[in-house]
Amino acid sequence: MAPTIALDAMGGDHAPEIVIAGAAMALEQEPSLHFILFGDQTRVEPLLSGRTALSRMVELRHTPDMVKAHDKPSAALRHGRNSSMRLAIDAVRAGDASAVVSAGNTGALMAIAKFVLKTLPGIDRPAIAAVVPTGTRPVLLLDLGANIECTPELLFQFAVMGEVFSRAVLGVAEPKVALLNVGTEEVKGDDVVRAAAALIRDSNLPIDFVGFVEGDGILGGAADVIVTDGFTGNVALKTAEGAARLMAASLREGFTSSLRSRLAYLIAKPALAKLRERFDPRRYNGAMFLGLNGVVVKSHGGADALGFCSAIKAAVDVVQKGTLERIADEMGPFAQTSPSEAQLAAS
Amino acid sequence: MAPTIALDAMGGDHAPEIVIAGAAMALEQEPSLHFILFGDQTRVEPLLSGRTALSRMVELRHTPDMVKAHDKPSAALRHGRNSSMRLAIDAVRAGDASAVVSAGNTGALMAIAKFVLKTLPGIDRPAIAAVVPTGTRPVLLLDLGANIECTPELLFQFAVMGEVFSRAVLGVAEPKVALLNVGTEEVKGDDVVRAAAALIRDSNLPIDFVGFVEGDGILGGAADVIVTDGFTGNVALKTAEGAARLMAASLREGFTSSLRSRLAYLIAKPALAKLRERFDPRRYNGAMFLGLNGVVVKSHGGADALGFCSAIKAAVDVVQKGTLERIADEMGPFAQTSPSEAQLAAS
Repeated sequence: MAPTIALDAMGGDHAPEIVIAGAAMALEQEPSLHFILFGDQTRVEPLLSGRTALSRMVELRHTPDMVKAHDKPSAALRHGRNSSMRLAIDAVRAGDASAVVSAGNTGALMAIAKFVLKTLPGIDRPAIAAVVPTGTRPVLLLDLGANIECTPELLFQFAVMGEVFSRAVLGVAEPKVALLNVGTEEVKGDDVVRAAAALIRDSNLPIDFVGFVEGDGILGGAADVIVTDGFTGNVALKTAEGAARLMAASLREGFTSSLRSRLAYLIAKPALAKLRERFDPRRYNGAMFLGLNGVVVKSHGGADALGFCSAIKAAVDVVQKGTLERIADEMGPFAQTSPSEAQLAAS
Repeated sequence: MAPTIALDAMGGDHAPEIVIAGAAMALEQEPSLHFILFGDQTRVEPLLSGRTALSRMVELRHTPDMVKAHDKPSAALRHGRNSSMRLAIDAVRAGDASAVVSAGNTGALMAIAKFVLKTLPGIDRPAIAAVVPTGTRPVLLLDLGANIECTPELLFQFAVMGEVFSRAVLGVAEPKVALLNVGTEEVKGDDVVRAAAALIRDSNLPIDFVGFVEGDGILGGAADVIVTDGFTGNVALKTAEGAARLMAASLREGFTSSLRSRLAYLIAKPALAKLRERFDPRRYNGAMFLGLNGVVVKSHGGADALGFCSAIKAAVDVVQKGTLERIADEMGPFAQTSPSEAQLAAS
């Protein structure tokens, strides 16, 4: 049976319109999905009229309040108890929905989700993970900004969660796991990343740990799961996005620079369209908050309907593949003692 | 008068061949350049025979030893006293050459250069800086790996040096300076990056400080000088390189996917060639070690002759524009007290 997804109808730059449009699009592809929409009734209801298929699968819960894009996470947590975001997350904890999708304020979403859902046993703090488009196999990058500074233990936990996600959700049979670093040799980097490598290597978990990869390894296929702190991961992902945008803009410019190149563009159009589709960021939209006791997916704030639909599908995928249960299974042995303590005891 | 450049003839994957070929190429463009070549006489001399123009402008100094690609910096510093790298740097300190260019081991080059040349007054540690190709105006990114962890004071010093470099060498009239971060709001990031922002803002230096930029701002033109720690900078630069390579490979694939797209490629070839040239990494080769009491330029280890020639030209440019003197001028007021102390005294 397809799951019920809680949607924060008020989050994001183009809410509630694209939330409704994205939900309708997802329902076309998976007709047995159910949604609980949290938002301002007077704004959401008109958007549902005329969408009979969607209306049949939707329960609308009016929420008087919303978290704004620039609200501080702490303020959103304290004062946002009646916000669409908070009530959507509450619905996951209450068991009314199997997952929540929001395009709202990332920091607030993380703070509220952590507070309401708590972390899985063995996980100290959740990470933000996303699939980066390499054109061939999917690469999972985490953390993308939830944890600006990380201990070796946190990076270890991210590696385990990422590995499970890659197998369970992305279908990679034996994911190669790597730590992002400034060089591939064992001596490179700072104490944290070297200690994290030791923790993973000595954990006895059946993880195919390939050691360190450099920045060009993210899109270069050096590993299937690439683990780093939230500062570096955020910068790396956004730098890659910036590079892709620059190349696309330059290409466009190249193709319009002369009559001759315009002709070439017309001829090459189908091939270029295929290429554009393969790397379309909207198809990869939906960052996972991994490590929580509930499925939380963050859509890009500026997503359109197709992008929001991708985020919904990502949430459905995570639910249907029992990802959280599998992470909890793997982390079980580490739930009582932290990995560093376990390491010390074993040595 | 064109300067004399010391060349580490034995550094890099294709040494000494590409070093000689790169020097010959640079000399074609600047016929009054002089070189001192440090390397194995039996290997370098044959490469000079037949190159009459180059031979006339070259002094060859035989060096019995060389630093290898995987030597530890500390070992290279201790045991490499007769290496081509060390003796080339010594020549800069002795005043025989105005700059040194090496494609050898980055860590060793930095360690030896720091030991032999020392830092400029007011600079605690040098940074590695490079120009990233944005297609339009040149963007300077630093640090790229010399300092894995940075204090706010270091980031402040990098900002000042980068700003001078952008004006003096890159010809940017009023460079916008930014700190790389995970968001643009003042509250974002960790304590280090926020304290660095305060130091720059409160320094009273005439720097156009635009605050924080995110990863996509590097190639997106958000600033002319982008400052970060060596870990993040290294990952960001290599991620951008990886993204560019992936896009280029995908484009190639797209253009060979059908007869039709192959025809389009033939027609678009001149426009695409211009594009390729604009982003050709060889044209941007040559990372600066900024903050040393001497000009040190690091060529990519795998550079070809054109790439090595670019690194030589970058070194010449830095020398001719009096960059070090200008950095020392700016840093002068900070040479006695560290900027944090100066800040404290002023507050």
